[in-house]
Amino acid sequence: MSELIYEGKAKKIFSTDHSDQVKVFYKDSLTAFNALKKGTFENKGSINCEITCLIFEYLKKHGIPTHLIRKLNENEILVQKVQIIPLEVVVRNVLAGSTAKKFGKEEGTKLKAPLVEFYFKDDSLADPFISDDQILSFEFATATEIAALKKLALQANNHLQSVFAQCEIKLIDFKLEFGKNSKNEILLADEFTPDCARLWDLKTGEKLDKDRFRRDLGGIDLAYKDVLARLTKALK
Amino acid sequence: MSELIYEGKAKKIFSTDHSDQVKVFYKDSLTAFNALKKGTFENKGSINCEITCLIFEYLKKHGIPTHLIRKLNENEILVQKVQIIPLEVVVRNVLAGSTAKKFGKEEGTKLKAPLVEFYFKDDSLADPFISDDQILSFEFATATEIAALKKLALQANNHLQSVFAQCEIKLIDFKLEFGKNSKNEILLADEFTPDCARLWDLKTGEKLDKDRFRRDLGGIDLAYKDVLARLTKALK
Repeated sequence: MSELIYEGKAKKIFSTDHSDQVKVFYKDSLTAFNALKKGTFENKGSINCEITCLIFEYLKKHGIPTHLIRKLNENEILVQKVQIIPLEVVVRNVLAGSTAKKFGKEEGTKLKAPLVEFYFKDDSLADPFISDDQILSFEFATATEIAALKKLALQANNHLQSVFAQCEIKLIDFKLEFGKNSKNEILLADEFTPDCARLWDLKTGEKLDKDRFRRDLGGIDLAYKDVLARLTKALK
Repeated sequence: MSELIYEGKAKKIFSTDHSDQVKVFYKDSLTAFNALKKGTFENKGSINCEITCLIFEYLKKHGIPTHLIRKLNENEILVQKVQIIPLEVVVRNVLAGSTAKKFGKEEGTKLKAPLVEFYFKDDSLADPFISDDQILSFEFATATEIAALKKLALQANNHLQSVFAQCEIKLIDFKLEFGKNSKNEILLADEFTPDCARLWDLKTGEKLDKDRFRRDLGGIDLAYKDVLARLTKALK
């Protein structure tokens, strides 16, 4: 028996016969600006599914626990069921997007050290930026959990920077989500895809991520395929 | 010799014969929404000047260092010259205004513990909300300074809650600014007035602060006079 539990903007979650496992189906749809802009391209789901698998397996090897159990087919993975911590964990190596704009910094400004930011996961509120003190005050996570999320996100960033460097891609920023399984362990969950990372070609500076869709730059399908091809070469 | 050094939305700063002292003149003007809304009322400057003096003298007695040296006349105070730390330090006891709205919380929600928030002081960027990690990353303050600002703001809050309780006023939230003097000491600077605090009558819940102006509730001059009268009774 497999029932749809939840449908998000780019993925569907289905139940399985195991109460502590669910299936994640990657859709071909693409949204931006809190789903105000919508699109799709062929094979987007299978490309993102495979990129997530490559990255999550790589991070797992390097000591970052993830929800991934195994790939089921082109668009589906089997994962541990987790309770998602309602925080988007963003790591920035170079300033771009909302934070650059908010503080009047030029896109492309390199940070001296990686910066971790939290956003409260709530579509109806447009995922507002949130401080550690607000997270504690609203009891969205404990101080121990905040520290664990920062540590895991920065560890992941170290390993990701190294693999993307092999791919001749500059890892500008990315968003992670974490969840807790039935044993209360914090696992990397959700996805790692060009939907939620900024990836710039090391030589040309060309954007190989969802900014091609946000900013109507075209060629998004080729960019995502290119990222997958480079990661496959580096990691398989 | 006294020259205008700086003119803000509600105050002017003048030089004095002492290089480490300046005069602050409180204007009758009133602005809201990053100065998109403008107003004025008679004696607003002198009322806010006196409220700041009462509060700053009270906080000084309770161990919070301030820039205030002495009052010069109805609208003017003499203060230590400081380099303002570019952070607005907000303390919230009860949710209201921007944070309530951003997180979909009802105005009037009591917090279990006071919440400190920082906003980056830059009118051209509309004073964006900023996290501790962003402050460190952009080098707007050091970790030691952040800790000192939080400690001083929470200490001030304790003492202010007690004096406003005597005034039968609920201290909902307020904004402080701090600066560093020539000896690199952190001093409470700027002002404490109903322009940058939410003050609700304990019995009726009536707003006695700038929200009367922001929300076109009328009677702002009477509200500010009322706050001054209650503080004078409690503190003089």
